[in-house]
Amino acid sequence: MAKKVAVLAVNPVNGAGLFQYLETFFENGIPFRTFAVAETPHIRTNSGVELTLEDTIAHLKGHESEYDAVVFSCGDAIPRFAEQAAAPYNQDMLSVLRCFGKAGKWLIGHCAAALIFDKCGILSGSRVAVHPLAKPAIQQGIATDAEIEIDGRVLTARDEKYLPVLMPHLIATLQ
Amino acid sequence: MAKKVAVLAVNPVNGAGLFQYLETFFENGIPFRTFAVAETPHIRTNSGVELTLEDTIAHLKGHESEYDAVVFSCGDAIPRFAEQAAAPYNQDMLSVLRCFGKAGKWLIGHCAAALIFDKCGILSGSRVAVHPLAKPAIQQGIATDAEIEIDGRVLTARDEKYLPVLMPHLIATLQ
Repeated sequence: MAKKVAVLAVNPVNGAGLFQYLETFFENGIPFRTFAVAETPHIRTNSGVELTLEDTIAHLKGHESEYDAVVFSCGDAIPRFAEQAAAPYNQDMLSVLRCFGKAGKWLIGHCAAALIFDKCGILSGSRVAVHPLAKPAIQQGIATDAEIEIDGRVLTARDEKYLPVLMPHLIATLQ
Repeated sequence: MAKKVAVLAVNPVNGAGLFQYLETFFENGIPFRTFAVAETPHIRTNSGVELTLEDTIAHLKGHESEYDAVVFSCGDAIPRFAEQAAAPYNQDMLSVLRCFGKAGKWLIGHCAAALIFDKCGILSGSRVAVHPLAKPAIQQGIATDAEIEIDGRVLTARDEKYLPVLMPHLIATLQ
């Protein structure tokens, strides 16, 4: 049976990354729900297009058990993450990701996703693909130079340009 | 000097295709404006996400001379195109594409884009990459089985999965 996926999108989000996940899930019958890591469901892509997602991260908190997997869809919000780390939506995001990680669910993402997973303390020795600028900051995971890494239930891509390589594995895992 | 690009998105649009163009243009300093092929700027992706674009196709009509290139971003609207062909937004789209073609501007797109260009009578012998289902309908262009085709000012990809192959050529052409 297809797994149900919670897709987290930061604000701004890289639209090329986000919609490679969403269109692939749609085309392959993998159910998903989109959550803005923001105060409202209205966010923007790096390229400035306004998106209206289905819900906000605050409403995923406490409902993590309804999902089998989480996608962290990276974007230009993340290089500035430290400035906004205390915002409730970012704290909710970290809390939600910790919950998915501790429950042993699938953790999926690209670019700085592995760094965020690492900061949540949910990698514990997993090999991860990550943006080269984020690689030195990975502490608990094992950051490699690979285009993608699949280590148990952690599936990562170096950046959105390598998602086409990851997608067949995502489909096989989630469908 | 960077060329200015009009990006046309049908409703629904394949988000993975649309945002590969937009994020690439954004990251490479290529100016663009987004136009919904719809009555309002609010459209949806195939995967169901609501997008708010900058404008509608009706407002591009008569302003084609302000742009150097047009992108036709395909989506699930197109297999049902015949049912809605008479709608003003679709007639405006055909009119706008004819204008770009007749002015010798760059014509860019994926999936059924080449078929739409062909129906507008603006291919006149150009080699095009196109979705296999649309290939037999191409009349004035020369449809190939290639992943991408670059023939003069016509740049096409078979579908959104081959846009990563086309993007370096788009950057070199438009930047």
